Amino acid sequence: MSKGRVLIAYSGGLDTSCILVWLIEQGYEVLAYMANLGQEEDFEAAREKALKIGAKKVYIEDLRRVFVDEIIFPAIQANAIYENVYLLGTSLARPVIARRQIEIAIKEDCQFVSHGCTGKGNDQVRFELAFYALKPDIKVIAPWRIPEFYERFPGRQALLNYAAEKGIPVVQTAAKPWSTDENLFHISYEAGILEDPNVTPPKDMWKLTVDPEDAPNTPERISITFDKGIPVKVVNHNDGTTVTDSLELFIYLNTLARRNGIGRIDIVENRFIGIKSRGCYETPGGTILRAAHVDLEGLVLDRQVRSLRDQFITPQFSHILYNGQYFSPEREFLSASLLASQKTVNGEVKLKLYKGNVIVEGRKSDTEKLYDMEESSMDVQGGFSPVDSEGFIKIQSIRLKKWGESAH
Amino acid sequence: MSKGRVLIAYSGGLDTSCILVWLIEQGYEVLAYMANLGQEEDFEAAREKALKIGAKKVYIEDLRRVFVDEIIFPAIQANAIYENVYLLGTSLARPVIARRQIEIAIKEDCQFVSHGCTGKGNDQVRFELAFYALKPDIKVIAPWRIPEFYERFPGRQALLNYAAEKGIPVVQTAAKPWSTDENLFHISYEAGILEDPNVTPPKDMWKLTVDPEDAPNTPERISITFDKGIPVKVVNHNDGTTVTDSLELFIYLNTLARRNGIGRIDIVENRFIGIKSRGCYETPGGTILRAAHVDLEGLVLDRQVRSLRDQFITPQFSHILYNGQYFSPEREFLSASLLASQKTVNGEVKLKLYKGNVIVEGRKSDTEKLYDMEESSMDVQGGFSPVDSEGFIKIQSIRLKKWGESAH
Amino acid sequence: MSKGRVLIAYSGGLDTSCILVWLIEQGYEVLAYMANLGQEEDFEAAREKALKIGAKKVYIEDLRRVFVDEIIFPAIQANAIYENVYLLGTSLARPVIARRQIEIAIKEDCQFVSHGCTGKGNDQVRFELAFYALKPDIKVIAPWRIPEFYERFPGRQALLNYAAEKGIPVVQTAAKPWSTDENLFHISYEAGILEDPNVTPPKDMWKLTVDPEDAPNTPERISITFDKGIPVKVVNHNDGTTVTDSLELFIYLNTLARRNGIGRIDIVENRFIGIKSRGCYETPGGTILRAAHVDLEGLVLDRQVRSLRDQFITPQFSHILYNGQYFSPEREFLSASLLASQKTVNGEVKLKLYKGNVIVEGRKSDTEKLYDMEESSMDVQGGFSPVDSEGFIKIQSIRLKKWGESAH
Amino acid sequence: MSKGRVLIAYSGGLDTSCILVWLIEQGYEVLAYMANLGQEEDFEAAREKALKIGAKKVYIEDLRRVFVDEIIFPAIQANAIYENVYLLGTSLARPVIARRQIEIAIKEDCQFVSHGCTGKGNDQVRFELAFYALKPDIKVIAPWRIPEFYERFPGRQALLNYAAEKGIPVVQTAAKPWSTDENLFHISYEAGILEDPNVTPPKDMWKLTVDPEDAPNTPERISITFDKGIPVKVVNHNDGTTVTDSLELFIYLNTLARRNGIGRIDIVENRFIGIKSRGCYETPGGTILRAAHVDLEGLVLDRQVRSLRDQFITPQFSHILYNGQYFSPEREFLSASLLASQKTVNGEVKLKLYKGNVIVEGRKSDTEKLYDMEESSMDVQGGFSPVDSEGFIKIQSIRLKKWGESAH
Repeated sequence: MSKGRVLIAYSGGLDTSCILVWLIEQGYEVLAYMANLGQEEDFEAAREKALKIGAKKVYIEDLRRVFVDEIIFPAIQANAIYENVYLLGTSLARPVIARRQIEIAIKEDCQFVSHGCTGKGNDQVRFELAFYALKPDIKVIAPWRIPEFYERFPGRQALLNYAAEKGIPVVQTAAKPWSTDENLFHISYEAGILEDPNVTPPKDMWKLTVDPEDAPNTPERISITFDKGIPVKVVNHNDGTTVTDSLELFIYLNTLARRNGIGRIDIVENRFIGIKSRGCYETPGGTILRAAHVDLEGLVLDRQVRSLRDQFITPQFSHILYNGQYFSPEREFLSASLLASQKTVNGEVKLKLYKGNVIVEGRKSDTEKLYDMEESSMDVQGGFSPVDSEGFIKIQSIRLKKWGESAH
Repeated sequence: MSKGRVLIAYSGGLDTSCILVWLIEQGYEVLAYMANLGQEEDFEAAREKALKIGAKKVYIEDLRRVFVDEIIFPAIQANAIYENVYLLGTSLARPVIARRQIEIAIKEDCQFVSHGCTGKGNDQVRFELAFYALKPDIKVIAPWRIPEFYERFPGRQALLNYAAEKGIPVVQTAAKPWSTDENLFHISYEAGILEDPNVTPPKDMWKLTVDPEDAPNTPERISITFDKGIPVKVVNHNDGTTVTDSLELFIYLNTLARRNGIGRIDIVENRFIGIKSRGCYETPGGTILRAAHVDLEGLVLDRQVRSLRDQFITPQFSHILYNGQYFSPEREFLSASLLASQKTVNGEVKLKLYKGNVIVEGRKSDTEKLYDMEESSMDVQGGFSPVDSEGFIKIQSIRLKKWGESAH
Repeated sequence: MSKGRVLIAYSGGLDTSCILVWLIEQGYEVLAYMANLGQEEDFEAAREKALKIGAKKVYIEDLRRVFVDEIIFPAIQANAIYENVYLLGTSLARPVIARRQIEIAIKEDCQFVSHGCTGKGNDQVRFELAFYALKPDIKVIAPWRIPEFYERFPGRQALLNYAAEKGIPVVQTAAKPWSTDENLFHISYEAGILEDPNVTPPKDMWKLTVDPEDAPNTPERISITFDKGIPVKVVNHNDGTTVTDSLELFIYLNTLARRNGIGRIDIVENRFIGIKSRGCYETPGGTILRAAHVDLEGLVLDRQVRSLRDQFITPQFSHILYNGQYFSPEREFLSASLLASQKTVNGEVKLKLYKGNVIVEGRKSDTEKLYDMEESSMDVQGGFSPVDSEGFIKIQSIRLKKWGESAH
Repeated sequence: MSKGRVLIAYSGGLDTSCILVWLIEQGYEVLAYMANLGQEEDFEAAREKALKIGAKKVYIEDLRRVFVDEIIFPAIQANAIYENVYLLGTSLARPVIARRQIEIAIKEDCQFVSHGCTGKGNDQVRFELAFYALKPDIKVIAPWRIPEFYERFPGRQALLNYAAEKGIPVVQTAAKPWSTDENLFHISYEAGILEDPNVTPPKDMWKLTVDPEDAPNTPERISITFDKGIPVKVVNHNDGTTVTDSLELFIYLNTLARRNGIGRIDIVENRFIGIKSRGCYETPGGTILRAAHVDLEGLVLDRQVRSLRDQFITPQFSHILYNGQYFSPEREFLSASLLASQKTVNGEVKLKLYKGNVIVEGRKSDTEKLYDMEESSMDVQGGFSPVDSEGFIKIQSIRLKKWGESAH
């Protein structure tokens, strides 16, 4: 008798194929689920493989648009960034994947969901907190945390042996000396030779973007238009290309950034579970978008709103996403606040893309008028009297004079 | 009879020369003070000019080392940045200039200090809050806020006429269509044609750095060593140059950054007095240093200390500096906290400099061991059991399950 | 010819009566405006007095309900408090008064508004920032900041002389040795003998509440019901009184608090303009409401939402109100966030009122289920396995062990 | 052969006595450790009992002074408070207990430490995070998380049976229908009948303080002197009693507070592990001290320092303590910052204690002069010109006018 139905997040690779077969071996009925978030993948080959090795059913879901609209663009609105540098590409994908997995699990009456994450990383946390928040009674099977599984498969060779034994097809590619995770927003590289944080990543590791040294010698000039902090139009001034559909727009920015060598980083970060780890990331289109959004806010966002948003929402939203708490009351709370911060973020930013650089060349807004050229001018006497500044300074100094008197 | 003695912050330019003469005309005895913070300037010519037009005495003070040691390096420790982008170059210089001005004023029995700042900018605030905090009974003469002065000199031509009339020597250079402020850390450009925030700055505006497009095609590789967050050594791996003296080190980083096109930005920012203004800045060496410091902290700073420092000290310290409150109890309070955050920031960062890019290529620390290659490894089972992660996630999910049950 | 029309915020007292007459003397046409925010006042007598001394028209506006609904209750939702102690009673009233003043000024074609605030306090700032935000081209006449006014009236006797001279009726009451400001929410006492912060306020100063020592020896028990953080019902369990209308409810809570000696404080606070000042306050009903709201949030608000709200909204909202920036983009931003935080704040709190104490005796919520008696129980094994806690602690300790190894 | 040596945190009660015997039964050598933190306890009886039931050795450590000096007073400096209400009494004691336990474990070559905490509470986390930070290789035995233990002892009766069987003496007291934890700073009540958050605690539950209704009808007046935020003297003005020794001073404040019914609260709080629980607490002396310290800061702490301290240190320090991370880099970082904030907190506060109320009646400082009676005075024109306020407001309004123009 079946132990129940499991929906496994399946990648088509060695690990999740072995897990799939192992779960069947343990007495479960297994369904496979693949989320298309824009990663390079032969989804149909994976479907066939899953069915061949015993999956009852395979779901392949194109979640790219919802990823862009519901997650990537709000992250841009928030200027989301982790530990000053990382644009959160892996974390952003997780809520979209997990939510669809739970939806299918419910539809298919699966009591279990499963995944191939290790027991030391952030992703197990991200997936499972999402699962539990969305369906508190779901049961999770995480084989890499089950002793009888991980003791049976102590390394890659053990998995290969199992695959041979069970007739799991294995693509004969030389394993890269690092792991990757790819989606529309970014690719990550970690583990293997990267574990020494002082080893410079080899030139051929980087996959999404051209090396800045190999990028074109001629810059490309574009402009991006935002509406309430959401990008709604990209124009390439070199060739006149114009894109407005959200998914196409993001893909197009990726194309531009990739060919101009934009979006690489290399960091040591702090995982949620308290371990430091080294990661390299490419976030091509996202790097352009964030630069443009940050710039436009200078023109159209009130100083105090910006300061409050920067202090509260940006870091909290980023930590919450990194730590896998997208489906949580605090994230909903922050999203409502974020929305309230973006109503004036309307306008257009001009950018030059050149060998790894995103260079702002100007910005304007037809609707938002907080910037006042005359008032701002050092030459024109307008808006207020210089005498007012005198009073302003005098009042500001009251407290400091008092302190100066008593401290020195 | 004299109205008293004034120490004026003198630049040698048209404005402060006219102010100097005007103050004498008003009945003051005037002494001139020039701070050498590394700006390009013919100090001796300025000294002669000041004396020629009536200054009783001229002080020219080389404050570059104290600027680097007391202000720039702590700003690097704090990862100081204003509104996500601006490295605060003008703000950083002000405390050093103002403090020496007060010291000289005290020594020379000046009841007054004076400056040439306009009535609409940040600098008047920065100078005067410093003056008042350091010497609460000082009197400040800010001619650009005195109606009888600014009404008499409504534009450059009026100043030129006055100079001609009073025999003030004027260097016949074509005025640039923008203003600049330069020091060892940066140069700013604002006003004039830059007041339209959508106008791209002309290529020949940028003074300190070469255009990235004109920078060398071959990258330079360097490493920077930090001790408690302070840079103590720079090595150029292309040619073996090694620098350890703080001032020389910073000047050398400037040289490297300038020739590789590093450190340009263009923003609309919010001035303290509530006006938005557009500024372009070059911060060559500071840009490299900040990138290196941020990176090293990934390796050696505890996650929670970093998070607290990022949330509290970085933004507050930056705002306080921008707003001219360096000499204040809150800045002293933050500096004490900052110091406490940096005791483990020891190690070395490898960087590649290339056409505007500062690319991190690795980092290490001989003394700090928070990063643990084995523990971090996805391949090795070590440090803790994967079963622990299960419990961690389960406990983290308690609250979210409860929320999931009640919200959906 | 008239210099224009002025709408003055009129109190009926000596100061604003003299100002009213002085403005007429200066050539203005003057209209008077009184806001009824629940202070003890003979509004009709004041109306007659204003007309008698030359006001063209008098507006007396009952703003009590809007004060409760739009300002007081949101402040309760925010747990608003300034410098740990002060419930912001004066600040809360200002936006309501200022907004109506501007509405009437517009309706009556007044180019000017005026008030009787001194040049050293917070209220001038609060009123004027509201005026300027609501009607940027309004002109403000603040006589206590106009030298020809304040030099003419250096003290109370000068005002009395002027009143006598101009036929302004003066009520012959002995002046209290302190100033007060009263509204529905609170009364403040400051200045005069209170300026020595070590002087204990005399027993007969306190006006709104009975001295705790004189309050009844028998406690009163009540319960307050909240809906989305807004109080919607008060029940007195001693006598069965039930109140649900917002204004009546707040007035009733005032009655209860006043007779039980609840809501007195005595502090030294930091004014916006950088001066420390001593104030004594009575906030009877507000003190009960805040205690009840804070308590209920324990039961029904998610931990992280509470923590974020406490860290961001409560202090910022309080500072913004204190500093007179109610009509500002940042306050609108915070209000949107606040709203998002309160959707689960539904339930009922039981309180005992006794001689200055507000004692929570229990709370419940029929709709919100984040509190789970079984899960919380130390006796019952339920919800999760104790083994999970082991993993939770182990994972939490990874970082601390690493630190322990390197630090000691 | 022994499995090793265990140092158990022993209370003398039924639970830890059974655990002690059970550990011996499991093959461990067991030493007992009792920390005297001021709880009511017959330590000598407990010592005899421990020895009688098999402990090899018993340590009874008087940690009261270190508790006051190292933990309680810094918490007062920080105004530490959890979720607006709770003064953290249990959390504060844990670091002191855990540190001494590790010191003795090291001295006695114990490989293990053990405690009687349940698997659902905060205390297991607090103890164990401290253990691991102080001695990363220590092994922890937490029987209430070990299935073979907690399944064997599903309730109190099972423990009683075991005690009878093993000859463990049991004091025949009627078990209270709640649990308590007591130390010098506070006592907590939770569980049992308190698990229904709407049940009012019975009058006879409260142990440390007299019911406010039964407290004296005559107030007591005292003053407390602080030096750098640390209380250094208490004077009782009713009878002249003066105390200056830190431990005696704190005990004396407890005496005063207890007899005046001061320091009771009743809350629903959020445990670290994500469960809500209801707790009642009495914190007599701490409640007085916190009120006094908060008040004095109004007089002597700079506005901005206070605001930064309130926003950063108070909530973070409180959360860190609550969550058991006292021995952590972030707590050390915050302590350094806290210290920097307290250097001006010098002065004296006058208080009236009356039936549950702590009423501030005045404060003064001989050394700190940020409060300036003349400057603060509404009557005196001094320190600055009212015209300055005009400029201050005008400048503050620039941004709001701009917003007003565009928003309305």
